[in-house]
Amino acid sequence: MKNMHKNSFIAFALVCAMVFTTTAACVADPLPSWNDGKAKRSIIEFVEKVTKQGSPDFVPPAERIATFDNDGTLWAEQPMYFQFLFALDRVKALAPTHPEWKDKEPFASLLKGDLKAALAGGEKAMLEIVMATHAGMTTTDFEQVVKDWLATAKHPNFNRPYTECVYQPMLELLAYLRANGFKTFIVSGGGIEFMRPWTEKVYGIPPEQVIGSSIKTKFELRDGKPVLVRLAEINFIDDKTGKPVGINEHIGRRPILAFGNSDGDQQMLEWTQAGLGARLMTLVYHDDAVREFAYGADSKIGTFSDVLLAEAKKNGWTVISMKNDWKRIFPWE
Amino acid sequence: MKNMHKNSFIAFALVCAMVFTTTAACVADPLPSWNDGKAKRSIIEFVEKVTKQGSPDFVPPAERIATFDNDGTLWAEQPMYFQFLFALDRVKALAPTHPEWKDKEPFASLLKGDLKAALAGGEKAMLEIVMATHAGMTTTDFEQVVKDWLATAKHPNFNRPYTECVYQPMLELLAYLRANGFKTFIVSGGGIEFMRPWTEKVYGIPPEQVIGSSIKTKFELRDGKPVLVRLAEINFIDDKTGKPVGINEHIGRRPILAFGNSDGDQQMLEWTQAGLGARLMTLVYHDDAVREFAYGADSKIGTFSDVLLAEAKKNGWTVISMKNDWKRIFPWE
Repeated sequence: MKNMHKNSFIAFALVCAMVFTTTAACVADPLPSWNDGKAKRSIIEFVEKVTKQGSPDFVPPAERIATFDNDGTLWAEQPMYFQFLFALDRVKALAPTHPEWKDKEPFASLLKGDLKAALAGGEKAMLEIVMATHAGMTTTDFEQVVKDWLATAKHPNFNRPYTECVYQPMLELLAYLRANGFKTFIVSGGGIEFMRPWTEKVYGIPPEQVIGSSIKTKFELRDGKPVLVRLAEINFIDDKTGKPVGINEHIGRRPILAFGNSDGDQQMLEWTQAGLGARLMTLVYHDDAVREFAYGADSKIGTFSDVLLAEAKKNGWTVISMKNDWKRIFPWE
Repeated sequence: MKNMHKNSFIAFALVCAMVFTTTAACVADPLPSWNDGKAKRSIIEFVEKVTKQGSPDFVPPAERIATFDNDGTLWAEQPMYFQFLFALDRVKALAPTHPEWKDKEPFASLLKGDLKAALAGGEKAMLEIVMATHAGMTTTDFEQVVKDWLATAKHPNFNRPYTECVYQPMLELLAYLRANGFKTFIVSGGGIEFMRPWTEKVYGIPPEQVIGSSIKTKFELRDGKPVLVRLAEINFIDDKTGKPVGINEHIGRRPILAFGNSDGDQQMLEWTQAGLGARLMTLVYHDDAVREFAYGADSKIGTFSDVLLAEAKKNGWTVISMKNDWKRIFPWE
């Protein structure tokens, strides 16, 4: 083929391919696990208007930043944050090398199986448990510990690996957004290094797009080999007012879409909404005691307070009812 | 067209397009501003082997992380770090609203034009200048200040905007790596929010792929509108042992290619090299007093010490001579 012919031919084929793709996208439902209704419609309308060339709401792909909370938004968080269940398992696993824990709270009570007594020490006790199980090793070793735990541990209610206790409608939403040029980020109060070993495989979100709480690390040479050692010192708490700070530090751009489920997400949604142009702010509400859990203002984990509900109403944020808006909750259903 | 016909047609066209693209890539030199030699060859050989399907050194695209220092590696850093020149200009601009600076060091000397006297106060004086010019405003306001400065300020030697004082061979390298599926990151001792307003336009590196030093920020509601206020408190120093820490925190994956130019980059290169599989570590050496600047072990800015040189030799890192390896240094040449 001569060049001119070849170029015309390619151009023609590309147009065909585009038409074909568009047609297919119109026919297939990108969110099959979502019931038809206001929530689903608000998502699709938003994506269509920000991706439509020439629309007054058009947003260039580079600026299509979408941020998601993790616990209670992408995967379950009851009966306890999964990372805390991980910490409890680690206390048991590490107990043989810590004989002093037999007489030291909160470990003594934990090892006797008395969680309530262990947590009577409040935040200080929680922090001691977290640091004893999350610090002191290299980042590489910690990653392996997380992977090993996830490979064997099972959710107490569902008897499934924790990485299967993720919400099918949200997996579809993440894929739908990425297919429309969005960059999807996690912005979680959970530990950044507890999430990174598995988010790419489970959510399609690579480690560099995961933001979370962290402890400090220190560069060291061990036998001439560089390592990063995890220190028992808080580096950053990525919750409430920390979420916009974390977003700014890691992304440096304001999201145009943000998804959360609890009081910890309020400031992320406010920060998202305060930008110029079209925005979508959404909260998942856990109201399905049959298929998952029902909890709200009175829950210590994933609190959805009346203040948050009032904010959502005032600001026009979409509140998703898991019971009514989701046809399916978990991938295995 | 019926579906089967259309599909065959598209498949055929895509194959044609691929052949066409591959041929063009083989013919054109991706690094035209690099002289043929060991440095250029080592880069191309590395990229070819990690991107070749089936090669023992093949690296999946998601893991093709490349990190670059900024000052002295992607743009110039003499006669002073550009960010410090920005700070000096800001002191002058802000002086009318700070009458107390007339009698307060280091500002008093600075405003008299006596930089040496101003910097006699060492690190403490430097920090005071940085905080007085970088903190106290919102992130949005600071971004605008940086943009405004870059739009008018000119390099004292080259009489060009600072964003033109970037190295043409490195621009080509960044584009070449991205065309080969690499994700390019900046890992700089410079301020993260001083770089982000322009790196996408100048280097093609989006804000979320910029890592740097930072001050703390605080979420606040001002007239009901959320803002992030920049505080006069160090958050993170992304230099020397801080670089692997910053890479781990922001990327969560180890680079397979790292580029630096000074002692501040040694640990980033060590960290990169310590991973499994093929690696490329490179240092830019400033030895061209005619076209740019010549400096090394004795320079306070961008120190390239004998220790670093010895490390480079011992570890097989590539050292690039700007004089010999680069055909062209700046885009305007």
